[in-house]
Amino acid sequence: MWIENFSDRSYRSILKWGDKKTFHHPSAHLMEFIKETFGLSEEDITKPHLPGLSDVSIKAKPQIKEADLKQITKIVGRDNVDTSDYERARHAVSYTYRDIVDLRKGHIPYPPDAVVYPRHEKDVIEIVNYCNLKEIPITPFAGRSSVTFGVVPRKKGISLDFTRHMNKVLEIDEVNFTVRAQPGIFGPRFEEILNGYKNDRIKTGFTCGHYPQSFEYSCVGGWVMTRGAGSHSTGYGKIEDMVLAMRVVTPKGIVATRPFPAAAIGPDIDEILLGSEGAFGILTEVTLKLWPYHPENRKMFSHFFKTWEDGVLAMREIMQGDFGHPHMLRISDPEETDVAMKVQGMEGTAIDTGLRLLGYKPNKRVLLIGAVEGDRDFSRLVTKKANKIARKHGGLPLGAIAVKGYMKRRYADPYMREDLMDIGIITDTLETSCTWGNIMHVWESVRSVIKARPRTVCMVHASHAYQNGANLYFIFLSTMVKGKEEEDYTKFHHKIVDAIVKSGGSLSHHHGIGKLFTPWFADHIGPMAFGILKAIKNHVDPNYILNPGGTLGLDVKKK
Amino acid sequence: MWIENFSDRSYRSILKWGDKKTFHHPSAHLMEFIKETFGLSEEDITKPHLPGLSDVSIKAKPQIKEADLKQITKIVGRDNVDTSDYERARHAVSYTYRDIVDLRKGHIPYPPDAVVYPRHEKDVIEIVNYCNLKEIPITPFAGRSSVTFGVVPRKKGISLDFTRHMNKVLEIDEVNFTVRAQPGIFGPRFEEILNGYKNDRIKTGFTCGHYPQSFEYSCVGGWVMTRGAGSHSTGYGKIEDMVLAMRVVTPKGIVATRPFPAAAIGPDIDEILLGSEGAFGILTEVTLKLWPYHPENRKMFSHFFKTWEDGVLAMREIMQGDFGHPHMLRISDPEETDVAMKVQGMEGTAIDTGLRLLGYKPNKRVLLIGAVEGDRDFSRLVTKKANKIARKHGGLPLGAIAVKGYMKRRYADPYMREDLMDIGIITDTLETSCTWGNIMHVWESVRSVIKARPRTVCMVHASHAYQNGANLYFIFLSTMVKGKEEEDYTKFHHKIVDAIVKSGGSLSHHHGIGKLFTPWFADHIGPMAFGILKAIKNHVDPNYILNPGGTLGLDVKKK
Repeated sequence: MWIENFSDRSYRSILKWGDKKTFHHPSAHLMEFIKETFGLSEEDITKPHLPGLSDVSIKAKPQIKEADLKQITKIVGRDNVDTSDYERARHAVSYTYRDIVDLRKGHIPYPPDAVVYPRHEKDVIEIVNYCNLKEIPITPFAGRSSVTFGVVPRKKGISLDFTRHMNKVLEIDEVNFTVRAQPGIFGPRFEEILNGYKNDRIKTGFTCGHYPQSFEYSCVGGWVMTRGAGSHSTGYGKIEDMVLAMRVVTPKGIVATRPFPAAAIGPDIDEILLGSEGAFGILTEVTLKLWPYHPENRKMFSHFFKTWEDGVLAMREIMQGDFGHPHMLRISDPEETDVAMKVQGMEGTAIDTGLRLLGYKPNKRVLLIGAVEGDRDFSRLVTKKANKIARKHGGLPLGAIAVKGYMKRRYADPYMREDLMDIGIITDTLETSCTWGNIMHVWESVRSVIKARPRTVCMVHASHAYQNGANLYFIFLSTMVKGKEEEDYTKFHHKIVDAIVKSGGSLSHHHGIGKLFTPWFADHIGPMAFGILKAIKNHVDPNYILNPGGTLGLDVKKK
Repeated sequence: MWIENFSDRSYRSILKWGDKKTFHHPSAHLMEFIKETFGLSEEDITKPHLPGLSDVSIKAKPQIKEADLKQITKIVGRDNVDTSDYERARHAVSYTYRDIVDLRKGHIPYPPDAVVYPRHEKDVIEIVNYCNLKEIPITPFAGRSSVTFGVVPRKKGISLDFTRHMNKVLEIDEVNFTVRAQPGIFGPRFEEILNGYKNDRIKTGFTCGHYPQSFEYSCVGGWVMTRGAGSHSTGYGKIEDMVLAMRVVTPKGIVATRPFPAAAIGPDIDEILLGSEGAFGILTEVTLKLWPYHPENRKMFSHFFKTWEDGVLAMREIMQGDFGHPHMLRISDPEETDVAMKVQGMEGTAIDTGLRLLGYKPNKRVLLIGAVEGDRDFSRLVTKKANKIARKHGGLPLGAIAVKGYMKRRYADPYMREDLMDIGIITDTLETSCTWGNIMHVWESVRSVIKARPRTVCMVHASHAYQNGANLYFIFLSTMVKGKEEEDYTKFHHKIVDAIVKSGGSLSHHHGIGKLFTPWFADHIGPMAFGILKAIKNHVDPNYILNPGGTLGLDVKKK
């Protein structure tokens, strides 16, 4: 029933998440849940909706002048410029929900004029200088895992792809515990090199500790420039906590910072570039912190709680202890907990019955999972303390089992999106961060907007915790309005974002702003903060060639 | 032999560090060491050099127009404007070495025209708006502990003093573990309020964990705006790690950030304001993170090492472990270790003899001290691990005793500066941060410049450690060239700073830039980074009224 065969030149091959040969189809339990929840007909299930199977064809010809393309080709070489329809289409989209719908409809509204693969920083400098002179837009591109239109070249021009050449680890410094890397290296290769760096002193290798759900198909450059977070950020930090130095090419010149471990030399320049999402400059190199790699010391714990409030309180107390933090800590709200139990076939089993008898009831109970890495004694200590706090709040310990399931599924779950969309199901996510004092209010406010849509599933978790608050991650599933897929979705999406902002959450915790949140951004950070960003933009990119068309709202009018 | 009596209106009363009634005179051992080292005569010791005992008198009359002063007085009220010579002199200087020499000579080159005490943010807004309109310089002022001319009103105008009214804790949020405070609250009062916040849930009170050596006479506002570090920053973080939100008044309006625990909403605005040292805006409120206050759980450890290299290696390995970090970790180089043993009368004692016999020899041996706070099991674990690493590198454990001495003296030692200057001794400090890979090179390069001056003591420690490097703090003592105190010192100082920068250290780790490091600053961060700061300055303070005269080099020509 699921689509596994499609042309390598098809829209489908672009919209598919991850490896073209790898699938993670919905389980029978999940399908049962979906059929029941969304009232799907046999036809819905058997006849794929907008499968995007036709081959890519772009009607709009490149706008770039022949002479300009020739000059750019002269810089990088003929092999490193591609103007084929397929590559232009592949570089025209991110993994934002609306991009996927566009692809399914064979609609490519923003194809770049050319895809360019720089070989080294010198290429980037020459390209930026030339494009600045000729006012040709440049959109940086690597893993394309953006869910905010981050890499969509809204003003066309060139898409600068770092994954072909600028995808290396340049240096591992075992004295300083740092790595210098290029922006176009993918997560698995990056970690493989770090993990494999072993000698007499570094016995077990290194890790950077950054494992976003997009890990397999996202790159270091995207992590850095969007302020990403990995699943283990509670211990290793978000990417902004890991960056020590950067090299960023702007039309005005290169901003190069240095890997001082800390300093009091004015405002932090890295923190200006981090989150600039390609609108201030093009990252060519980054220095990141490393940790010893000790997966064998990982301790895992999980607890059921009787209520969401109990679980969140336990999570907060774990983060407000002063015994060190877990590396990963994640709590699912009642709906996510129930759905997870359903789709894993646990509903009605002895475990479920046992839980109910003990007072952990459906529609109320929540699941908290955690993992601690690093030194063996440290991971034991933090696990022990976390378990103690959990038990104080009525936690029913389940040990490592629930955590292992999560660790196994975390990269694979996004593969289901294409299948769900084939059967007419919207599946998307929005996320925010908020203080502990405001978390219940944000959860309730946003959830109520999502649940107001008929037949809509809303699963929420907090997966990144801090002393002073946590993120909230909303996964929602609903039925597409066939024929009005985009208009209907866009309205729904706007209402949810409005609710996030109005309830006092941040506009994003780790997805970033991109061109998706442009209508809210300036108001969200306030006119003074926005004015500062605009002043920087005017200075470093006076011709507005860098990732134009909405990034951080710098070149568009306010909502 | 030491001066304890002086007029409350004297220059002496301004140059004296800390409480006017509190003294910490050099011990007999220290004096013996000083006499011997610097070859002081009886006259040097008995006749104070430039004691600054006369009463303050400023010849230059305020430049501010009567009408402007009247308007400003109308904003804050008559009681909150002071144009007396004494207060103008007190607000004309920081604790930078050259300020102290100026005071000793009765020389006040940069008196503000008036000292103004705003009552609340509204006053600050009105003052900033009025001064912007009339192009009257404003220099923010609180604890005056700057050692970089931070609060010196080089362009005169008004000194805005926050210590009289805007010195409150506004709110402690026990759910979010945060505190909102005003800039003019001094360290001891701030911690007293936090420590004393107790109830059924918060049984032991809170701490902010920020204890700079200036703790007694520095304020929250200065900590934040200069990117300060406390002695326990290795565990609690530098101030930039503690700040969650700020309110900063600029001529363009108020920049107000929000206490999201983390976010991906573009560049970090707090990190632009942190370290702006009053040149981008005036801080009126800051939200900081809190920790549980558990001094009773503090564990201390100390070790002698046979060489500086061994000790630094042990320090690095402690920081590169993954078992949690100590809160305080500090190593003294051979000269600092020897001087400390001498002035504490340990030279030639049984301890000294024992150390020598065991191979811990003068001129080679170094002392590492550490402290771990927080949860009792955590502090035990980290102490155990640190001790194990230290022993591996030949550490001879001394337990808590050496740490207790440091903890007792750390706030008091600066009180000796006035006595040492009375006997013609230069005593000053410079500091930097660097990677582990570069620490020996920076130490050697900078030290060799300091030691090239005849009869000069140079004591170095690394007191703030990170995974990827540490700071180096240079304390130097030498004899003044009488009659040419400033010229001679300035030349010497420039040579040392040149050596720091040339060897690859940062221009500062926690003192900040102020107006002292202006000649190096733009080159140090690079023209592109400097251009970004200049663009921000032009935007938020187009008339250059905020802390003008060199802050971050934004309004002066390069060296």
